Amino acid sequence: MPAISNKAKEMPSSPIRKLVPFAETAKKKGIKIYHLNIGQPDIETPPSFLNAVKNASFKVLEYSHSAGNESYRKKLCGYYHQYNIELEASDILVTCGGSEAISIAIMACFNPGDELIIPEPFYANYNGFSKTADVKVVPVSSSIESGFALPPIADFEKLINPKTKGIMICNPGNPTGYLYSKAELQALKELVKKHDLFLLSDEVYREFCYDGKEYVSVMHLSGIENNVILLDSISKRYSACGARIGALITKNKEVMASALKFAQARLSPPSYGQIGAEAALDTPASYFEEVKKEYVSRRDFVIEALNKMPGVFCPKPSGAFYCIARLPIDNSDKFCQWLLEDFNFNDQTVMLAPAAGFYSTPGSGANEVRIAYVLNKEDLKNAMACLAEALKVYPGKTN
Amino acid sequence: MPAISNKAKEMPSSPIRKLVPFAETAKKKGIKIYHLNIGQPDIETPPSFLNAVKNASFKVLEYSHSAGNESYRKKLCGYYHQYNIELEASDILVTCGGSEAISIAIMACFNPGDELIIPEPFYANYNGFSKTADVKVVPVSSSIESGFALPPIADFEKLINPKTKGIMICNPGNPTGYLYSKAELQALKELVKKHDLFLLSDEVYREFCYDGKEYVSVMHLSGIENNVILLDSISKRYSACGARIGALITKNKEVMASALKFAQARLSPPSYGQIGAEAALDTPASYFEEVKKEYVSRRDFVIEALNKMPGVFCPKPSGAFYCIARLPIDNSDKFCQWLLEDFNFNDQTVMLAPAAGFYSTPGSGANEVRIAYVLNKEDLKNAMACLAEALKVYPGKTN
Repeated sequence: MPAISNKAKEMPSSPIRKLVPFAETAKKKGIKIYHLNIGQPDIETPPSFLNAVKNASFKVLEYSHSAGNESYRKKLCGYYHQYNIELEASDILVTCGGSEAISIAIMACFNPGDELIIPEPFYANYNGFSKTADVKVVPVSSSIESGFALPPIADFEKLINPKTKGIMICNPGNPTGYLYSKAELQALKELVKKHDLFLLSDEVYREFCYDGKEYVSVMHLSGIENNVILLDSISKRYSACGARIGALITKNKEVMASALKFAQARLSPPSYGQIGAEAALDTPASYFEEVKKEYVSRRDFVIEALNKMPGVFCPKPSGAFYCIARLPIDNSDKFCQWLLEDFNFNDQTVMLAPAAGFYSTPGSGANEVRIAYVLNKEDLKNAMACLAEALKVYPGKTN
Repeated sequence: MPAISNKAKEMPSSPIRKLVPFAETAKKKGIKIYHLNIGQPDIETPPSFLNAVKNASFKVLEYSHSAGNESYRKKLCGYYHQYNIELEASDILVTCGGSEAISIAIMACFNPGDELIIPEPFYANYNGFSKTADVKVVPVSSSIESGFALPPIADFEKLINPKTKGIMICNPGNPTGYLYSKAELQALKELVKKHDLFLLSDEVYREFCYDGKEYVSVMHLSGIENNVILLDSISKRYSACGARIGALITKNKEVMASALKFAQARLSPPSYGQIGAEAALDTPASYFEEVKKEYVSRRDFVIEALNKMPGVFCPKPSGAFYCIARLPIDNSDKFCQWLLEDFNFNDQTVMLAPAAGFYSTPGSGANEVRIAYVLNKEDLKNAMACLAEALKVYPGKTN
């Protein structure tokens, strides 16, 4: 039997993967699980999206252009214009989800062994895409005390060496919910300019910025246009995760030409998703206002509930729909498994994502969990009640 | 400005990519182009597929399982059973097109620098997926005189060294249309067993086997179950290229577990495509009979027309919808460009794929083209008339 590749052996599993069998067993026992462990929103996909797919009339479901339908890319320029991001259709490569955008960007820019600095905690799949390209992720720590603000630039500087090829951020952040300020992005800009690095920015949560705070994109940073790659997805924007439509966006012609070669090899992004996404660009502002209001209300409830629990600390995020909470427990991997395996409160329990999987530094995040507030308020109330009860009786509690 | 990766620089372009601007210019001049250059069939997608998508009723377009919807994978087992391929749902990973199946298989099995032997000419994008994984493609030549039959096993043996990790075939073949016989597959089996190699087989054209010849899958080869990976796609089967639904299939549990880790990093395959593909499994046999009849008739017409042209030789393929023709010309890259740039016959011309792009050995295929007989008979008649006329007047003709 031939051996699998080293890459396959080293490929990280999802942070919640090992919990799945325990969740299945709990379900079989009749226990209701509140899933706060993944970013699958319960928000309805806009009817404009779903109806466009329903009403699409063609007889042959053909390949699209490898870069995505031109009509969609042109209309996308208008969408970005609303955010003061000025693009041409040729600056946009439509991808199979944000995942493929990240994967292609890393392959187009990084050689095996090159280093990519990412503030941690970060979206765990960045590890997988980096491993796929044999790129080394170098974490720079952000702290829960500061609400996961950008680490000091001096901390980045310490990590930069001839192997360093780029910096990657997620803004607003998954898993932290942190929204970078203009000053933070300006500081990153100077750093990127000084060392001539790529700046990759995953901004798939731009519709989810709260409290009137300003969304600043890496595309707003003048003078580093050739360094910047914007990674995007419609999954969260339109609650259309299954469409698998994302985008790689850059003004760097060489990067775009390279990205297109990778895109041509895989032929085209999904056609149905593009049809829906194009139609959804007409989604009225009121849809997003409603969604935002809902998330703010969920966030406020969850953050307050968490911080009321003895020994729990959770900074209040300004974006996305995640938060990271520090719990008074020995180990969140154990705790999250225990929640599914050994605990229930009125035949209900809660599934959370252990935060260690979002850190690259060993040992970090061991007493933290990521909570996705993607359920309705009633469910969130029950979920928080479960968590509060669990923290009272968990054998590994530390206070 | 930071440099792009070496991988990006070395990433091959599609064989027809450089022809695209010439085609666009020709169109602007009002010239009608018959596209025999790509495998985009004009056959209608089965109504069962399109209607299932139209009638899908859900309010949230969610992620599917990373391995694909279980209901689809279970039903797929029944589909493969018709071909005497016995599977369980857990042997199947649903991918974003056949492209992703190939890409994941290569990453899961091959280390950078490992060698993958492929009979040439082969589907050009195998180069791209191999480059992405830093895997070296080692071609073994098949000849147009034999109709692109499997090269002698001795030729494979000469190429096998400690770096050799696998063999990849396409059956029925793109770009050759060749259908491997049972004896050829048995010979491959012995070779794979002897050297304990992976055997990757792209069988996306299994519905297109003609003249009553038997389709033999690598999944039929007993005793090498842990070596075999079947790469599949619904793109051609249901003329649903834009759905982006494929599959990686293996009985090797370790390979499947690894493949799943790559699949989890990219979250899920497209949801709409899976809905259509699952429904299309009920497509009646009569649909495929009709399609097959149509392709046989197109093939017979094209092969006869080609071989009637002075100096042209084109073996008659038994599968897929491609053929490779040797033309009496200096260079097919030049010829295919000339067809678009400098030639027309009653304001019509034909776009072909220069065959050099399907060969890895420099210089091979220089006087060959790939023809995809994916148009209706009337268009094919006009296209062949254009080609016959072009060969009379092309300045670089060699007879």
